[in-house]
Amino acid sequence: MALTADIREADGTRVEQVMEAIRRRIAARTLQAGARLPSIRKGAQSFAVSPSTVVEAYERLAAEGLIRSRPGSGFYVSAPQAPLVLADLAPRLDRAVDPFWVSRQSLEAGADVLKPGCGWLPPDWMPQEDLRRAMRSLSRATPSGFTDYGTPLGVGPLRQLLARRMAENGVEIGPDGILLTDSGSQALDLICRFFLEPGDAVLVDDPCYFNFLALLRAHRVKAVGVPYTATGPDLERFAEALADHRPRLYITNSGIHNPTGATLSPVTAHRLLKLAEQARLTIVEDDIFGDFEHEPAPRLAAFDGFERVIQISSFSKTLSAAARIGYIAARPDWIEGLIDLKIASSFAGSALPQHLAYSVLKDGSYRRHLHGLRTRLARAMGETIRRVGAIGLTPWIEPRGGMLLWCRLPDGLDAAAIARRAIKDNVVLAPGNVFSVSQTSGDFMRFNVAQSVDPRVFHVLERALDRSPKAGG
Amino acid sequence: MALTADIREADGTRVEQVMEAIRRRIAARTLQAGARLPSIRKGAQSFAVSPSTVVEAYERLAAEGLIRSRPGSGFYVSAPQAPLVLADLAPRLDRAVDPFWVSRQSLEAGADVLKPGCGWLPPDWMPQEDLRRAMRSLSRATPSGFTDYGTPLGVGPLRQLLARRMAENGVEIGPDGILLTDSGSQALDLICRFFLEPGDAVLVDDPCYFNFLALLRAHRVKAVGVPYTATGPDLERFAEALADHRPRLYITNSGIHNPTGATLSPVTAHRLLKLAEQARLTIVEDDIFGDFEHEPAPRLAAFDGFERVIQISSFSKTLSAAARIGYIAARPDWIEGLIDLKIASSFAGSALPQHLAYSVLKDGSYRRHLHGLRTRLARAMGETIRRVGAIGLTPWIEPRGGMLLWCRLPDGLDAAAIARRAIKDNVVLAPGNVFSVSQTSGDFMRFNVAQSVDPRVFHVLERALDRSPKAGG
Repeated sequence: MALTADIREADGTRVEQVMEAIRRRIAARTLQAGARLPSIRKGAQSFAVSPSTVVEAYERLAAEGLIRSRPGSGFYVSAPQAPLVLADLAPRLDRAVDPFWVSRQSLEAGADVLKPGCGWLPPDWMPQEDLRRAMRSLSRATPSGFTDYGTPLGVGPLRQLLARRMAENGVEIGPDGILLTDSGSQALDLICRFFLEPGDAVLVDDPCYFNFLALLRAHRVKAVGVPYTATGPDLERFAEALADHRPRLYITNSGIHNPTGATLSPVTAHRLLKLAEQARLTIVEDDIFGDFEHEPAPRLAAFDGFERVIQISSFSKTLSAAARIGYIAARPDWIEGLIDLKIASSFAGSALPQHLAYSVLKDGSYRRHLHGLRTRLARAMGETIRRVGAIGLTPWIEPRGGMLLWCRLPDGLDAAAIARRAIKDNVVLAPGNVFSVSQTSGDFMRFNVAQSVDPRVFHVLERALDRSPKAGG
Repeated sequence: MALTADIREADGTRVEQVMEAIRRRIAARTLQAGARLPSIRKGAQSFAVSPSTVVEAYERLAAEGLIRSRPGSGFYVSAPQAPLVLADLAPRLDRAVDPFWVSRQSLEAGADVLKPGCGWLPPDWMPQEDLRRAMRSLSRATPSGFTDYGTPLGVGPLRQLLARRMAENGVEIGPDGILLTDSGSQALDLICRFFLEPGDAVLVDDPCYFNFLALLRAHRVKAVGVPYTATGPDLERFAEALADHRPRLYITNSGIHNPTGATLSPVTAHRLLKLAEQARLTIVEDDIFGDFEHEPAPRLAAFDGFERVIQISSFSKTLSAAARIGYIAARPDWIEGLIDLKIASSFAGSALPQHLAYSVLKDGSYRRHLHGLRTRLARAMGETIRRVGAIGLTPWIEPRGGMLLWCRLPDGLDAAAIARRAIKDNVVLAPGNVFSVSQTSGDFMRFNVAQSVDPRVFHVLERALDRSPKAGG
């Protein structure tokens, strides 16, 4: 009896060993999807076990779904996964809180749709006349600017200009530390390719820009949220997340934070960098809303001197989202690796948008445009704060600048339900949970004050809130 | 004695089991890089083995490099991998046969450098006047075309125009089956994201466009080469590769093949599709040189009706490489998944290049431009064939159209060595092995006939070949 039990145990162990050996080969792809496994007889020989052990191992693996049997033909490694459908990678959420919901609703919206939930300015807030002039001037220029591939780093004079602009904010880097990209999104995507492997952990702010979450999903990595406060990430929770998840990257906004409109304080910046140094963490600082600041907030890259901070940005918000450019500012050894990845995935940047941007940025007109924009945004911010207050929403903070206002709904109302209702009235809202890894912003909503000037936004919102207007509202 | 051996064997099995359990946790990232392993005591408890078994397992895993010990502190999962340096992913090749060598030499070349090795036309072969006119016209147009994000699918009228153009070549697809991208490279990159996982196998032609190899490396997948013949891939070897590697994709050029200039024959296309169907293989047909054809060759997408074929292309070769656009034509369910990936990785396409392309393509000027281009290329092709012949090179075939000529060097000379020599004389050549997965094209070289008009190309080449000119050459 004892003997039989021993034998059974030993057999069990052998079955496990065979299973493990096969699992390892499939994981290492020495057994490819679709490949036939050795026959029972051959398997018994090669694993030096009895045929029944092989049968048992195969059947258990088949039960796990790793292999499947074709009657009369043997066992095969299961077919490779279906295509990467991003929507399937996360737990099935309400469609209105999926990161793609706001993107697609906003990007696909017709001219009759109001978009207080989108993250960009209306066309008439953009420097149209400067762009028209730049296009006419470029149409007369040497042809290579509108026929040839760009150089891998990008148009030289634009990189020099960017380096000078960054120096004004205390960020010191040479033009060869700047790699131009086709957008800020492409900048971040290249960095993810460079640093991440499937399964890695990445810290993000909670809440954060929803497309960070979509991109991290596409890279099959795990986004770990750190609560964001009015002065930057919650440092205690940040330290915990470092210890618990050993993240490879932290992705954040400096200057003006998306979606909260908050600004990183110098003391938080300093402590954050100390934590990052201890944990050997790389930080990606997305400066996308930097040009909207009245007073520049501290930049992590300025404090750190590009030891472990990478700065990215773009001109899609202030210049043109139709002729997009972005950039990466980073250590020279990283730039070198990023160039190869850029060539592999997009061959070369589009040079025309780079020439256009240079043409607008090089004289004083862009500064004047920004000055006017900041004033106009401040007015719209004040107006939106008044209007959301009148229907019972509470701004989380009053942002120092920019277009974003993060508001709490009254009475714990569900922002996703309201967004679903508003879209029927042709208003795209941005419900809080699209920004939240932990799904804890369900009663928040992000407003773009430049897209909220039309009073219909608040009529529709009010109806969706299903509340009557307050006195004086 | 027998007893001791038994115990030893049992212990060995237990050590293996503990090692496997830890390996699995690291692979599944439940034990993250940098994380501390359980102490010996705790490990012994949780694995229900003796402490000495845990010590042995940890030490063997440390010897494998999977974990490392910090004296006095315990064992830790080894640090995550360094950033993805593409150059390190392949066996260290001669720098001159790395896929990035030709790209970077060509893209970084100054105006004084001749580029017979590059894959695009000189600026004065591009439709400069048409582009100038389109830019002027766009500068007067409604501002949204040069300030706003594009829609996820891309500018509608351009997609309609592309669908009509494709129908002329027998490729039937509606405008909603066409997704505009920022380049042909981005089109292929999105498809790789959609279908591939690290470790997958992908079939390519041997030789093939070198940036396919760079992109596949960036996706950490295995490129499997199938020898290319004058009428398409070698079908016997193709069938073998299907059986041996169970590839997820096959990436190829229809129309004019890069680098050989060959054209797929109808019979090969038909048989290829039958093999693909049996193996449930998806085919990506890159039609990048299609507009250079005098007579359209068969398109796999036309035969297949977009069941398992995806067609991609761009206008970087015939219209502008500075305002780039590309596209993907595919089944609607695949397009839907690709849109999400496009948003995640680049948010929206740049609309300005799409409007520019539409402006040029919509009237007859682009057709006239193509007609002139084909005539001019045919002349340059004849001239280049004569010149390479004069210095002892043999064209592999005489292409029916396009800019590419694939030539064998005399006497088994090493193309990489010659390219290294020529670059010192400011001539960028394209040595054969940058195109070859199997590294069997070392005595081939690809010429761009439009970039080989300047006789200095052949003077430098001749000197690099270290041969005296032939009589009459």
